[in-house]
Amino acid sequence: MKSINIGICGLGTIGAGTFNLIDQNSTIITQRTGREIRVIQVSDLIDNPACDLSSVDLSRDIFEVARNPQVDILVELIGGTTTALKLILSAIENNKHVVTANKALIAQHGREIFAAAEQKGVMVAYEASIGGGIPIVKALREGLAANRVQWIAGIINGTSNYILTEMEEKQRDFADVLSEAQQLGYAEADPTFDIEGIDAAHKLTILSSIAFGHPLQFDQAYTEGIAEITQTDIRFASELGYRIKHLGITRRLEEGVELRVHPALIAKKDLLANISGVMNAVMVNSDAAGSTMYYGAGAGAVPTASAVVADIIDMTRSLDLPSAERIPYMSFQPEHIQEEKILPVSEIHSAYYLRMDVLDKPGEMANISRILSEDQISIEALIQKEAHTSGQEAPVPIVIITDRVKESLMDHAIAAIEEIPDLRGRVTRIRVESLAGE
Amino acid sequence: MKSINIGICGLGTIGAGTFNLIDQNSTIITQRTGREIRVIQVSDLIDNPACDLSSVDLSRDIFEVARNPQVDILVELIGGTTTALKLILSAIENNKHVVTANKALIAQHGREIFAAAEQKGVMVAYEASIGGGIPIVKALREGLAANRVQWIAGIINGTSNYILTEMEEKQRDFADVLSEAQQLGYAEADPTFDIEGIDAAHKLTILSSIAFGHPLQFDQAYTEGIAEITQTDIRFASELGYRIKHLGITRRLEEGVELRVHPALIAKKDLLANISGVMNAVMVNSDAAGSTMYYGAGAGAVPTASAVVADIIDMTRSLDLPSAERIPYMSFQPEHIQEEKILPVSEIHSAYYLRMDVLDKPGEMANISRILSEDQISIEALIQKEAHTSGQEAPVPIVIITDRVKESLMDHAIAAIEEIPDLRGRVTRIRVESLAGE
Repeated sequence: MKSINIGICGLGTIGAGTFNLIDQNSTIITQRTGREIRVIQVSDLIDNPACDLSSVDLSRDIFEVARNPQVDILVELIGGTTTALKLILSAIENNKHVVTANKALIAQHGREIFAAAEQKGVMVAYEASIGGGIPIVKALREGLAANRVQWIAGIINGTSNYILTEMEEKQRDFADVLSEAQQLGYAEADPTFDIEGIDAAHKLTILSSIAFGHPLQFDQAYTEGIAEITQTDIRFASELGYRIKHLGITRRLEEGVELRVHPALIAKKDLLANISGVMNAVMVNSDAAGSTMYYGAGAGAVPTASAVVADIIDMTRSLDLPSAERIPYMSFQPEHIQEEKILPVSEIHSAYYLRMDVLDKPGEMANISRILSEDQISIEALIQKEAHTSGQEAPVPIVIITDRVKESLMDHAIAAIEEIPDLRGRVTRIRVESLAGE
Repeated sequence: MKSINIGICGLGTIGAGTFNLIDQNSTIITQRTGREIRVIQVSDLIDNPACDLSSVDLSRDIFEVARNPQVDILVELIGGTTTALKLILSAIENNKHVVTANKALIAQHGREIFAAAEQKGVMVAYEASIGGGIPIVKALREGLAANRVQWIAGIINGTSNYILTEMEEKQRDFADVLSEAQQLGYAEADPTFDIEGIDAAHKLTILSSIAFGHPLQFDQAYTEGIAEITQTDIRFASELGYRIKHLGITRRLEEGVELRVHPALIAKKDLLANISGVMNAVMVNSDAAGSTMYYGAGAGAVPTASAVVADIIDMTRSLDLPSAERIPYMSFQPEHIQEEKILPVSEIHSAYYLRMDVLDKPGEMANISRILSEDQISIEALIQKEAHTSGQEAPVPIVIITDRVKESLMDHAIAAIEEIPDLRGRVTRIRVESLAGE
């Protein structure tokens, strides 16, 4: 029985999880693969007490792993994009296969990495970079390989989903939940990547490319986070039958590809609306399979390690294959990856939730309706609350759900509404997504 | 570029769907695989007008496909277990790889088929046999390959789920919905396989073996259908916060493996409770990834064809591999498939919903509580309705949710309750499943 030699770079939570999973489940892994997967070297600047490193070669220099002639597969779990890129390129240069969980690196430097790997005839796998333990890359590249994908919509950032779930279920404010999430370790000390949608945009960038066959274009992704979501909007959305979720959406249209990350209202009965807490789920709509969905823990040491080791196992089965018979890095053969225009957000089509405070005077609603209809925007649902105070001219909230319309028209209408003298503050706008099979 | 030659046996809905999908998506399939997949021969007793067969060799004898030296992969879509078994064994004998959507055949004759295939060094794939277009076999055999699976719970029969959904949402009776489902084509003229749970048991048998590594044991599966489910039970379940779903459940315990198909109450907030209509979903709980779920259309020509063609694509990538490096048929290397005791249903543990009609006399509830407590069964929830009639001694319903207990104890308690002279009719018993990550 051939054994495969692994070198793990980075012994943080995921690195330690991977090291321990290979150790704990070595019997079942061998029963399935017919091979032994051995970690022969690990590298980090500090030890991780969660791992028993007594029988493994420990190096303080990660690049030593990339140069180690005994290592077949280098597992990059150091994170970041500068040193990680150098490390992976060095491993490839030394003819090693690479497994990584690094979504930022793949989204931003995947083109360079895959080009280098192709030249050397080595594999680079990244299942763990999206959706933790959910085999979503496998589903897209293999399970749905006979399909044309039409769109993908996913809850792909656990921190944002946790915060929104807590805000809704416990009527708490964003800042309050965020600080608790940080204490519980569900959110980073610097939560920007998660709550601003950057992490989700990294993942969506990869999903879009493997679904549609265009090059990675992270810099073209539209990204909006959840920091502006308020209790008021969560309550109005609920009253209208919706829940607010932070989604990554990519859709192929004739005029280009939508690639956008933002909060959205989705119907409470939609499956994605029922994904709670830190869990992730990705809905894929494709021409043959229809809508399929993949759900699971989107982060965490052990679920992510599950995906890292699945990639390693897949590699052990493809080591002896010529490159052309392996699954292509980005799902399509390199010569069939075609440039696609990523649509600016002003060109997407969506329905919208609008909320505004207007002085409670006769004719204001007519005014707003007229502005919307001038931009061909229909109103699908409306909430207009009575003023609570007895005084005249108190501001009252108006909430509108519109029909689907091009975003630039909505921008235009909102600008006009914001010119109304009796409007107080600005118009809150959240997109409304219909995720039923289309 | 190497092309792969396919022969399709059976041109019913799935056969036609497969033929057309390969035709319609040939460009994208080639862009992904780097190979052309060509259907060179089809066989059925009658033509299917849904397919343009003008450029393909049509044979009336399916065994001709199995003997055709030009065919690399035979796709068995004739259904049934007698001729289909002969056909597949003949194809294997002739060194052909086989793709099938035939769950009954794999569940009942998989051992013989895989043994023959192993001897000849050919592949046999069956993704389409479970969950239509959902890549659940791939998820279990590959995506979760580093995991020990703990349990699987799935809605794996679309007809049963459609009927239960309609019964709940429209307050209609079983017989009424079934006859409509037959008219709409969602249920067969003879619906026994679907509504009695046999189809689900075929699928669960396969899932259990590839999850846990024991031989296929369809004859050991416990099978119960949905024909006894009433509006009364659906309403009481709802009042208690549950929905009734038809589930396939398999779980590995120290004393053996649970393998059971039956209706069950699950909490409305559970994801599986929110799978409606003909859709399928399979929840897998495993040690590393935790709970992951796979959702999609469980039947239908095109979703099933999506899985058939995914299997073909996978095969094109493994043609040149030695058998030992391919994914094992049943997920584990043949020498590591170990006999496991399938637990008789009397030995499973479950919570229970009990409903009974008892004359409204003092002391009856105390009587029932005493019987349950004698078998160490705790009551978790209770509904006791007032008699609607003014007359004395009218029967009133009592509904009880119990704690988890061994089924044999529950059988014993129910037998004792049914001895109560004031009980009218029998005790209705439905299992209650807790599907949160355990």
